Amino acid sequence: MKRKILFIALFLIPVMAWPANEELKYVDAQHLTLVGKVMPTPANVYHRVDTVKYGNMPGAVKRLFTYSAGLAVCFKTNSTNVTARWVTRNKGVMGNMTPIAQRGLDLYIYTDGQWIPAGVGTPIAGKMHLECRIAQHVKPEEHQFMLYLPLFEELLSLEIGVDSAATIEAIPSPFRHTVLVYGSSILHGACASRSGLTYPARLSRSTDINFINYGVSGNGKMEASVADMLKDIEADAFVLDCMPNPSPEEITERTPYFVNTLRKYHPGVPIIMIESYMREKGYSDQQVYDRCRRQSQAFIEQYELLKKQGVPDLYLIRDQQAIGTDHEGSLDGVHPNDVGFERMAKQYGPQLMEILKKYGIE
Amino acid sequence: MKRKILFIALFLIPVMAWPANEELKYVDAQHLTLVGKVMPTPANVYHRVDTVKYGNMPGAVKRLFTYSAGLAVCFKTNSTNVTARWVTRNKGVMGNMTPIAQRGLDLYIYTDGQWIPAGVGTPIAGKMHLECRIAQHVKPEEHQFMLYLPLFEELLSLEIGVDSAATIEAIPSPFRHTVLVYGSSILHGACASRSGLTYPARLSRSTDINFINYGVSGNGKMEASVADMLKDIEADAFVLDCMPNPSPEEITERTPYFVNTLRKYHPGVPIIMIESYMREKGYSDQQVYDRCRRQSQAFIEQYELLKKQGVPDLYLIRDQQAIGTDHEGSLDGVHPNDVGFERMAKQYGPQLMEILKKYGIE
Repeated sequence: MKRKILFIALFLIPVMAWPANEELKYVDAQHLTLVGKVMPTPANVYHRVDTVKYGNMPGAVKRLFTYSAGLAVCFKTNSTNVTARWVTRNKGVMGNMTPIAQRGLDLYIYTDGQWIPAGVGTPIAGKMHLECRIAQHVKPEEHQFMLYLPLFEELLSLEIGVDSAATIEAIPSPFRHTVLVYGSSILHGACASRSGLTYPARLSRSTDINFINYGVSGNGKMEASVADMLKDIEADAFVLDCMPNPSPEEITERTPYFVNTLRKYHPGVPIIMIESYMREKGYSDQQVYDRCRRQSQAFIEQYELLKKQGVPDLYLIRDQQAIGTDHEGSLDGVHPNDVGFERMAKQYGPQLMEILKKYGIE
Repeated sequence: MKRKILFIALFLIPVMAWPANEELKYVDAQHLTLVGKVMPTPANVYHRVDTVKYGNMPGAVKRLFTYSAGLAVCFKTNSTNVTARWVTRNKGVMGNMTPIAQRGLDLYIYTDGQWIPAGVGTPIAGKMHLECRIAQHVKPEEHQFMLYLPLFEELLSLEIGVDSAATIEAIPSPFRHTVLVYGSSILHGACASRSGLTYPARLSRSTDINFINYGVSGNGKMEASVADMLKDIEADAFVLDCMPNPSPEEITERTPYFVNTLRKYHPGVPIIMIESYMREKGYSDQQVYDRCRRQSQAFIEQYELLKKQGVPDLYLIRDQQAIGTDHEGSLDGVHPNDVGFERMAKQYGPQLMEILKKYGIE
C-alpha cells in the first residue's frame, strides 16, 4: 500500500491536489447516453451481449462479452470537474495492459469540432470500488464529454460526479449507423494504453460512424453459437477481424457457416473479412510465422470459395502490414501498442469507408 | 491467482506452450554487456547512479536512480530460446504503466541491419521472483540480442537462459559516444508500453549513439546536489529535459547553478536544453495550461540569460508540440504513450543530431 501511494505520488503534479471541502453531486451513468451497444442486456447495462439469452455460446466468450469494451457514456455538463465512482467485478492485473485500460476510464471532451482526451480514471491496485477525479479546472461552460469504459473487466456500476451547482444531461449519440466488428483480442483492445485508443474507438471518432466492438480476446473463433447470436443484430455492416484466434483448421471448418448465416439473416448488408497482420513475433519465432501464414491462407481460401459460390456483398481487406513495417507497432509481439493501433486505424479506415460508402454508410 | 492465470491464458496462443522437459543453462547477466551506464555502482550493477557516493541528493532522486531505466544487456547466442529469471525489489502496480514496462523485460534481436523486438518478459502480479520464456523457435544460428531492463523498479538479479548446448557471450556495445539526458518522468519512460520504446532508447537504436537515460520521475528538479553528481560524468553532451518537474520559481532559481556547473566541469561539451511540450491536460485544465506556460517561460528566460552572459556551447530546442497536434500522443494527459514517444523521437532526433554533429558526435 505504501508503495502504491508512492507510485501515485510520483506521477502527480502539484496542481492536481483534490480540495477536501468541495461538494459534488453524482448521477448514475445509466441515466446518461450509452454508446457502443446493439442489444439490451438486462443482467447489466454495461455488458455487450445478453449472455443469458445467448447461453449456448462458450463460457469464455460469454464472460468476455460481459466486459465493457467499446462502450462509452456521453453527456453534457457545465461542471468545472468531472469525477467518477465505479466498481469492477475483479481486481486482477494483466501483464501487458495498463490498469487504466484494463479497468479504468478514459474521458474525452468535445472542443473545436474534435473529441480530445481530457483525463483518465486510474484504478488503485487491489480495490474494486474506485473513485477518481478525472478532469478539473475546466472552463465553466457547457461541454460535451464521452467517457470510455474498461476494456478487460466487467463494470458493475458507474456514477459521474460534477460540481453540485452544475447541470449534467444525456446527449444524442455522436455516432450514426451500426458497423459491428467481431474479432480477437486485437479488436477487443489489447494492448491499447487507454480504452479510447482501440482501433474501433479511433474509427468511430474519426468517421462519426458507430463501430461496435465485439472483440473477445483469444476467443474470436467463429463458433456457430456466436453466428447464431449475430443473426439477431440489426447492423448496417459486419466486419470479421477474428483471423488470429481460430486455428487454420477451424477457419476452414467454421467460416462457411459463419458467413452464410450472416448472409442469410442480413441480406444486402456488407460482410467485410479482414486478414490480420503478421504478428511481430513471427519475424523471430518460426512457429508463430508458420501459424500466421497458414491462418491467412485458410481465411483467404474461404473468402474465395464463398465468392465463387456467389455469396453477394462479401469483401476482403488484405493487409499483412497493418501495424507498420518498422516492427515497433506491437507491445508483446502479438498485440498492437498505441503506435500499432494508430497505424491500423489509418490503414483500415479508408479501405472500410470505401466499401461502406457503396451502401450509404458514410 | 485464478484470475491471473485466466488473464494470461487469454493472451497466449497455442504454439507458445513451454515444453516441460527442456534443458536450459543460465548465465548471470553481469557477465554479459551492460549498456546505458556511465559510472560504476558498487551496491548493485543495475543502478544508474552510485547513490552511496552521491548521498547528498534528495531521497526520492536516489531511489529513482536505483531503477534500471535505460539499461540493457547485450549478448550473442545461437540458442533457439531466450529465457530470463529476474528479481525486482518490489511488486507494486502502477496505474498508468504496463507491468511489462514497469518491471518486465523487453528483448530485441538484430536482424537485417536493424534491432527488432523479439519478445517480452511479463511479470506475474504479486511475485518478485520472476521467470519467463521471452523468445523461442528462433532459427538456430548466432544472433545478437539486446534486453532492456525494467523502467520503474530496482532490479536485484537477472539470469539469461539459453539451450543447454548453445553458446552465449558478451558483445561489444552497439552504441558509441555518451549523450547524457537528465530529466523528468517523460524521459524516464512514463508511459512507454515496454522499456525499448522510451525516446532515448529509440534514439539510441536509430542513431547508434548512446543516449543515457537519467530520467527521475517527478523529481528532475535540478537540485544543486544533482549538478554536483553530473560534474563527475564524462559525457560528450548533456541534454536537460527536466522542465516539467520544477516549479517556474525553481526553474528560475536553479537553472543558473545547474548549467554553470556543467559548463565549468565539462568545457567544450554541448549542453542542450529542451522545452517540454504542452501537457495534454492543459487543453482542458486551465491550471495545468497556466503552469506549463509559466514553466516554458521561465526555462526560456534562463536560457536567454545564460546566453547573454556568454555561456558557450549552450543550445535550446523549442517544441511545444513534440508529441503531435492530434491530442492522441498522451496516455494520462501528462505522459506520452507509445504514439507520443514515436513522435518525440522523430521531432527531437534530427534537432539533437544537428547540434551533436558540430561536436563530432555522429
